[in-house]
Amino acid sequence: MPNLADLSKRLLVGRALRSAQLSETLLPKRIALPVFASDALSSVAYATQEILLVLSLAGTALLHLTWYAAAAVVVVMLTVVASYRQNVHAYPSGGGDYEIANTNLGPGVGLVVASALLVDYVLTVAVSTSAGVANLASAYEVLAGHEVGLTLGIVALIVLMNLRGVRESGTAFAIPTYAFMLGILGMIAWGLIRILLGHDMVAASARYEIRPESGYTSLTTLGILFLGLRAFASGCTALTGVEAISNGVPAFRKPKSKNAATTLALMGGIAVTMFTGVTFLAIHTRVHIAEHTEDLVGFTGEYQKTVIAQIGETVFGTGSLGFYYVQFVTAIILLLAANTAFNGFPVLASILAQHRYMPRQLHNRGDRLVFSNGILLLAAFAGLLIWAFDANPSRLIQLYIVGVFVSFTLSQIGMVRHWTRLLKTETDPKARRKMSRSRLINGFGACLTGTVLVVVLVTKFVYGAWIAIAAMAVLWVTMRGIKRHYDRVANELRVAEGAAEATTLPSRVHAIVLVSKIHKPTLRALAFARAARPSVLEAVTVNVDPEDTKALQEEWDRRELPVPLKVLDSPYREITQPIVNYVRSIRRNSPRDVVAVFIPEYVVGHWWEHLLHNQSALRIKGRLLFEPGVMVTSVPYQLASSAKLEQKADRAERFAPGAIRRGEPARPSGAEEIVSR
Amino acid sequence: MPNLADLSKRLLVGRALRSAQLSETLLPKRIALPVFASDALSSVAYATQEILLVLSLAGTALLHLTWYAAAAVVVVMLTVVASYRQNVHAYPSGGGDYEIANTNLGPGVGLVVASALLVDYVLTVAVSTSAGVANLASAYEVLAGHEVGLTLGIVALIVLMNLRGVRESGTAFAIPTYAFMLGILGMIAWGLIRILLGHDMVAASARYEIRPESGYTSLTTLGILFLGLRAFASGCTALTGVEAISNGVPAFRKPKSKNAATTLALMGGIAVTMFTGVTFLAIHTRVHIAEHTEDLVGFTGEYQKTVIAQIGETVFGTGSLGFYYVQFVTAIILLLAANTAFNGFPVLASILAQHRYMPRQLHNRGDRLVFSNGILLLAAFAGLLIWAFDANPSRLIQLYIVGVFVSFTLSQIGMVRHWTRLLKTETDPKARRKMSRSRLINGFGACLTGTVLVVVLVTKFVYGAWIAIAAMAVLWVTMRGIKRHYDRVANELRVAEGAAEATTLPSRVHAIVLVSKIHKPTLRALAFARAARPSVLEAVTVNVDPEDTKALQEEWDRRELPVPLKVLDSPYREITQPIVNYVRSIRRNSPRDVVAVFIPEYVVGHWWEHLLHNQSALRIKGRLLFEPGVMVTSVPYQLASSAKLEQKADRAERFAPGAIRRGEPARPSGAEEIVSR
Repeated sequence: MPNLADLSKRLLVGRALRSAQLSETLLPKRIALPVFASDALSSVAYATQEILLVLSLAGTALLHLTWYAAAAVVVVMLTVVASYRQNVHAYPSGGGDYEIANTNLGPGVGLVVASALLVDYVLTVAVSTSAGVANLASAYEVLAGHEVGLTLGIVALIVLMNLRGVRESGTAFAIPTYAFMLGILGMIAWGLIRILLGHDMVAASARYEIRPESGYTSLTTLGILFLGLRAFASGCTALTGVEAISNGVPAFRKPKSKNAATTLALMGGIAVTMFTGVTFLAIHTRVHIAEHTEDLVGFTGEYQKTVIAQIGETVFGTGSLGFYYVQFVTAIILLLAANTAFNGFPVLASILAQHRYMPRQLHNRGDRLVFSNGILLLAAFAGLLIWAFDANPSRLIQLYIVGVFVSFTLSQIGMVRHWTRLLKTETDPKARRKMSRSRLINGFGACLTGTVLVVVLVTKFVYGAWIAIAAMAVLWVTMRGIKRHYDRVANELRVAEGAAEATTLPSRVHAIVLVSKIHKPTLRALAFARAARPSVLEAVTVNVDPEDTKALQEEWDRRELPVPLKVLDSPYREITQPIVNYVRSIRRNSPRDVVAVFIPEYVVGHWWEHLLHNQSALRIKGRLLFEPGVMVTSVPYQLASSAKLEQKADRAERFAPGAIRRGEPARPSGAEEIVSR
Repeated sequence: MPNLADLSKRLLVGRALRSAQLSETLLPKRIALPVFASDALSSVAYATQEILLVLSLAGTALLHLTWYAAAAVVVVMLTVVASYRQNVHAYPSGGGDYEIANTNLGPGVGLVVASALLVDYVLTVAVSTSAGVANLASAYEVLAGHEVGLTLGIVALIVLMNLRGVRESGTAFAIPTYAFMLGILGMIAWGLIRILLGHDMVAASARYEIRPESGYTSLTTLGILFLGLRAFASGCTALTGVEAISNGVPAFRKPKSKNAATTLALMGGIAVTMFTGVTFLAIHTRVHIAEHTEDLVGFTGEYQKTVIAQIGETVFGTGSLGFYYVQFVTAIILLLAANTAFNGFPVLASILAQHRYMPRQLHNRGDRLVFSNGILLLAAFAGLLIWAFDANPSRLIQLYIVGVFVSFTLSQIGMVRHWTRLLKTETDPKARRKMSRSRLINGFGACLTGTVLVVVLVTKFVYGAWIAIAAMAVLWVTMRGIKRHYDRVANELRVAEGAAEATTLPSRVHAIVLVSKIHKPTLRALAFARAARPSVLEAVTVNVDPEDTKALQEEWDRRELPVPLKVLDSPYREITQPIVNYVRSIRRNSPRDVVAVFIPEYVVGHWWEHLLHNQSALRIKGRLLFEPGVMVTSVPYQLASSAKLEQKADRAERFAPGAIRRGEPARPSGAEEIVSR
């Protein structure tokens, strides 16, 4: 199995080749922060709301627990950030949680992390777009009631953008992410100033009493504890995306690990500040929010605004510029977060394909075609979830954080193993002390995230977490199956050392050129076949229409073509079977010969032209591939319309998806490749 | 353009080869009747009902017009049968209406007929399955309310049967068709006997008064005339399928034309008897039926039974064996009629493809793959209609007969032209008299069917006929476009007489073998490439992973493979572009050389295995086809699992769809083809 460390080497080798270009594309911290943090920071937009929604199930009675839940979330977040700073130093190759689990806990566990991450990509798209639309609808109530359609439309838009191959640039990430930070931090600051100035800030929804849901009216202590834990589990959505930086270390400027760790700390600080600030303002302004609006006593409107929107209205005033600004940048950053899943997916798929857990072609992640299939798959699953859960972020979030915490926990456990292994051989006391410290941090992280995982599973299983677990299980089994298949094939294809196969040659080449009529492609195929100087060369046609065949023979003789024409009869008017049978008869008569079948093809420019041409050529090729001792040669003839398509193909190769996150250079157009040796 | 008469020649040629087999498969009249008449006879199941439904719009006031409408339908039917007897004698090749219109009225008009027939195939499926389900639901009321799902399910079942390649046999058609005739004629006979015995036979629905629809309460004379004409137009659905025999002449025993004409007359007689009998019983038992059940005053049930079912209940008694028998055989014959569309489509498509109005691959109508696409297309459109019209046969029938009468009218006009042309040269007075008589019959047929067409268009345009017209127009334009495209390509590919292209050869062959690792497929490709003895031979690998590449080079040297290995660098980790660029550079250096690219491929057995393998080989091949002066050779290596798939492919070729209707022999399994010259 190829080592994951290859990734970094490949990047180093790439840099050695064209360092001038590459240094430009490596990211300074001020750009890396927005590129990798949009996902993590965007979750601030819904984390507080999720805590409030759970606690509101019991009416307003338990809202005071918000502080405890939020504080617990902050503790977990700081722990996770501290843990991942260790990961970044230990695994600078960008393999992330999958690499760590795979290396330290074995491929089975690594695959669990991979499944969890794949499920998470789907949910990131579903949750982020749904939350983005909810914030747009809070600003423009006319959109309310059309959330599902809007969300699906936005997913379609992101898909289109990605399929078209929009060039990623650091600036494109930087502006909206900084605008979002400015918006949220500005809102918090302005709110604090107004509080200090003694302004009375009360949310519009504060006046609605919340009716407890049935079953939550008189809770036991255990019930209260359970609800508090569930609120905490929901609040942990704030942590999604924290791991992004650990996947992107190769894209940082040198010293990569150090810069990445610093950026991680910065991001953690900003996320904690924003989350704390938003939660404080939500409590202070007494935002009341309920899963079902009918539980909000006195609420007559149709649409319940998001917590961010309610705070914005309270701090800046209804309809104020500040309110619209915050809503707008919140929506944008959420869509940006959804977009990151579309970029992250091919990176992970590529690594999994390298390990043969996914179709091999995904390994070549720069490939547009493969990338397109990945995008469509991701979008289809996300769309399904959006549709099934009515684009309701609160319902989708029940599924979300299982995967996140599975990979957090397993990667932290893997890190503990990593340090333990290193400590076995390390003798330098200073290095040992550092390692022990790292192990302590990761160990604490593992315990804490493991606990959270258990809390999440227990409190959310019936609310949707089971779906995420089931999806992970299906993925795990599928990927194992793919791996087994590849292993079996590799075994079948293996050549023994010194095997004779390497040197035995077929005795002669019997070439046949398939002819249906005499036109330029046929003549080219004949010329190429003759140039290849086979031992025997004949043209072959299938007689499906005696009149056509006669005309062909006459023209053949008249033109004095220097190759004999053989006619195969076909009483059932098929083309493929007579050719297959003829090829078999040649092989039967001289088993040591190889049969070379030349097929003239013409190359057209539009997809619909493909439907009109070459279908029988394709089918014949497909069938002949099953015959042993046969090689099939396509001799293309390019029609005028094909030139356009070639240019398009050349152009399509140029933009690699997610390149900026991997620190890859932009591809020059029509670049000459460097040929060595 | 190839002559349609080829079809018959091809069949003669086929017969000369294997006459013993063929005479068995040619149909005697007693089998030909059920094979070709199921479609025409099945329409008896709904024709009477459609007349009653239209007249019931005005309550019971106009029900006495039923007789007039039915009589008019009978006149048209007898005329059409008489006309088609002329067609059968004049065009025994089985080309049918399309051939007649094309030959006598030019390709533009021929294409109109073709479009009409294609639309009709779709509607035959939709109407017949819907009507079949309606009759099933009349017998088993538990099915009522699930018509759409049931109908779609039955279409799916027919599709599956056809995709699986069920062998057609005359007996399979004969038994249900004769059972249906027995059922309907028996019901009529038993009804008449009971009337003669003086039994009082009144349908259960006779007691419900019919409330006229708004707008039909007090009709003017013109209004009554219009409604009467509309009822007549609806009753003309009895004529659908009459033309089937004229498409099947080649499948008859000798003398083909005479036997076909006799069968046609027989079918006409039976159809008229059944239609008249059913209509008589419907009137006599006073079956009341309405488009909307709320117009049936006093009707409390949920499901309104079909007219056939109501008559069956009245004649045989509710829940009697006779009633269930009639319902069952009616449902079966309707499904059989739907199935004939699935057989008729590839025949027409094949002729259209021969004339280059449809993708060329459809020409080879024995081909399973092509046939499958045709089936799925047909089923998809029919399913769409069933869904859009709630599987309601009465609503679907509004679209139905436009196409039928377009092709009736145009083929009769064509026949008039045909006889006129023959009369110009014919001198034998006896023959002239016969031709004049035929011309008179066809001329009368043209006038009558033309009139019916106008009536249908006027009375039904707004009720759905416009959809059929629009679909025909779209088909017409599309087929013209396809033809234009093929003509343009043929022009581009034409070789001038004595052009040098036929004899100039590329100076040398520069062969490259693409290598990713050393396994059996690679070694086979190397051996085959060496056997072809090119001027230059090199192995080429793309360096996407320096470590893998290094390992490959080492193994290459260790195994002492007798071909130099060249490494192409790929800083962007793609495979295709570096290879394309390298091939271009070879061509640039020696433009008169041809580059032969050998690609090792392995052949797998399951569709899902295809997803896991060879994708980059496929893509490379696809891209290289755009390069001039390149030929691409696939060297297949068959994995163990591929053997199964080959057997499957061999087996799939054996059953040709619709063979029985074309008088083609069954294909022997694993037959040796006869190779001439």
